[in-house]
Amino acid sequence: MRNLNQDTVTQAVIARFAQTPDPRLKQIMTSLVQHLHAFARDVKLTEAEWFAGIEFLTQVGHITDDKRQEFILLSDTLGLSMLTVAMNNDKPAGCTEATVFGPFHVEGAPVVPLGGDVAQGASGQPCEVSGRVCALDGTAVPGAHIEVWQADAEGLYDVQRPDLGGHQARAILKADEYGRYHFKSILAEAYPIPDDGPVGDMLRATKRHPWRPAHIHFMIKAPGYETLITHVFRNGDQYLDSDAVFGVRQSLIADWTPRSDGSYEVKFDFVLNKAA
Amino acid sequence: MRNLNQDTVTQAVIARFAQTPDPRLKQIMTSLVQHLHAFARDVKLTEAEWFAGIEFLTQVGHITDDKRQEFILLSDTLGLSMLTVAMNNDKPAGCTEATVFGPFHVEGAPVVPLGGDVAQGASGQPCEVSGRVCALDGTAVPGAHIEVWQADAEGLYDVQRPDLGGHQARAILKADEYGRYHFKSILAEAYPIPDDGPVGDMLRATKRHPWRPAHIHFMIKAPGYETLITHVFRNGDQYLDSDAVFGVRQSLIADWTPRSDGSYEVKFDFVLNKAA
Repeated sequence: MRNLNQDTVTQAVIARFAQTPDPRLKQIMTSLVQHLHAFARDVKLTEAEWFAGIEFLTQVGHITDDKRQEFILLSDTLGLSMLTVAMNNDKPAGCTEATVFGPFHVEGAPVVPLGGDVAQGASGQPCEVSGRVCALDGTAVPGAHIEVWQADAEGLYDVQRPDLGGHQARAILKADEYGRYHFKSILAEAYPIPDDGPVGDMLRATKRHPWRPAHIHFMIKAPGYETLITHVFRNGDQYLDSDAVFGVRQSLIADWTPRSDGSYEVKFDFVLNKAA
Repeated sequence: MRNLNQDTVTQAVIARFAQTPDPRLKQIMTSLVQHLHAFARDVKLTEAEWFAGIEFLTQVGHITDDKRQEFILLSDTLGLSMLTVAMNNDKPAGCTEATVFGPFHVEGAPVVPLGGDVAQGASGQPCEVSGRVCALDGTAVPGAHIEVWQADAEGLYDVQRPDLGGHQARAILKADEYGRYHFKSILAEAYPIPDDGPVGDMLRATKRHPWRPAHIHFMIKAPGYETLITHVFRNGDQYLDSDAVFGVRQSLIADWTPRSDGSYEVKFDFVLNKAA
């Protein structure tokens, strides 16, 4: 444990975690140290670069509060979030696929009755959203808990508007006894992820754009089924092939159909996977 | 770029960094994504564990301020700091070895004349520190800039005492024309790293102790030489073989000799490496 050098320090650190009581925590810390050190060794990280990393993470920490989660944004833009979702949502074919949770979910969304207005004043062209929640065999999942959230026409979620003092374009609904849901909202539009912080600096330094294709977030819960966290994406969006957070799945893209009165409608059915 | 799965998402993320103008940044981001994803894949990180990681980093960010740097503490306790130091300070035999910078250095330490008192009221048994700064061939390095900082008898650095309103046990000195330095200070004692934050939680959960063996920090700068960031450790300390931040090197351990009046003395010569 003295005279550790670049070849021996990794094993010494791993040995220090040998007494970890929780075997899973021990496994995670051991692997984390191996891969973190392998990264530093691979690029032969300089001390100045190490310090730049410390400063970057400090900035990420300091811009993060109960309304803004820059660490999730960082994980999303590095593809770690989508990797984690993909590894943990290997469902039977036919079930609705999961995608990233994103940083804009908050607790305490208002409960809205079926058919009600989720927008609550958020800017955007009117849009009706409807569909059905069912099991893999097509049978209805009655009374599912459906949480929806989306950005407004300017690309902002309510939590990004500190002056708002209330929720917009965010609600909790309950599907009916046949698994059906419908609500009024606004047309989803493409928007840039918040890029006025360190994650935005990283995107600019690497010539990456911050845009996400238009989508509505859904989280659906029902007893006896796996919770589904997903989006419904808008067909034709120019960013479907370059989502800043790697969240698009072909099966989650739906047609948002314009109607003669200038409003839109989109229908999407969710197929839940039985809980293990 | 649609339908990314756990096998394809990593290459898609790496491809997104392909236009990074700075080749070094491109190399670092590419390697970071590879190793970060390899870690998640290796342990098959669950969504709950991913979120626990987000919350942990958020806590690290929120406890960090201009006086406390929990990200450096995290890097230190994971051995990343020592690995980075080791990779970047491969000096000729005979040069004084480098070790971790630690989180307690601050700018603006008071300038103290040679022979002066660095303690400035910090608690601890009196100790005189002296030695010489020289080059590998033994010739003196005249007038070197020497920065020292250490914890007091209670194991706290001045920056950990918000009520202090000034510096203690921290100073900038200038070696004389023969490279000699000497100053009065206090006896270095072993101390625990700050463990009332998330890094402390990590240490407790993994049954690691937070102690560092007694040491004084030195940063030495002189024109024409590499800056040396190191410690002098106190021989006989019980934590020399289990330093919480993996910073001990045998060559940096010195005898702190008790004197008849109850004070101590330690002598240490620093050998600087010529700048490349």
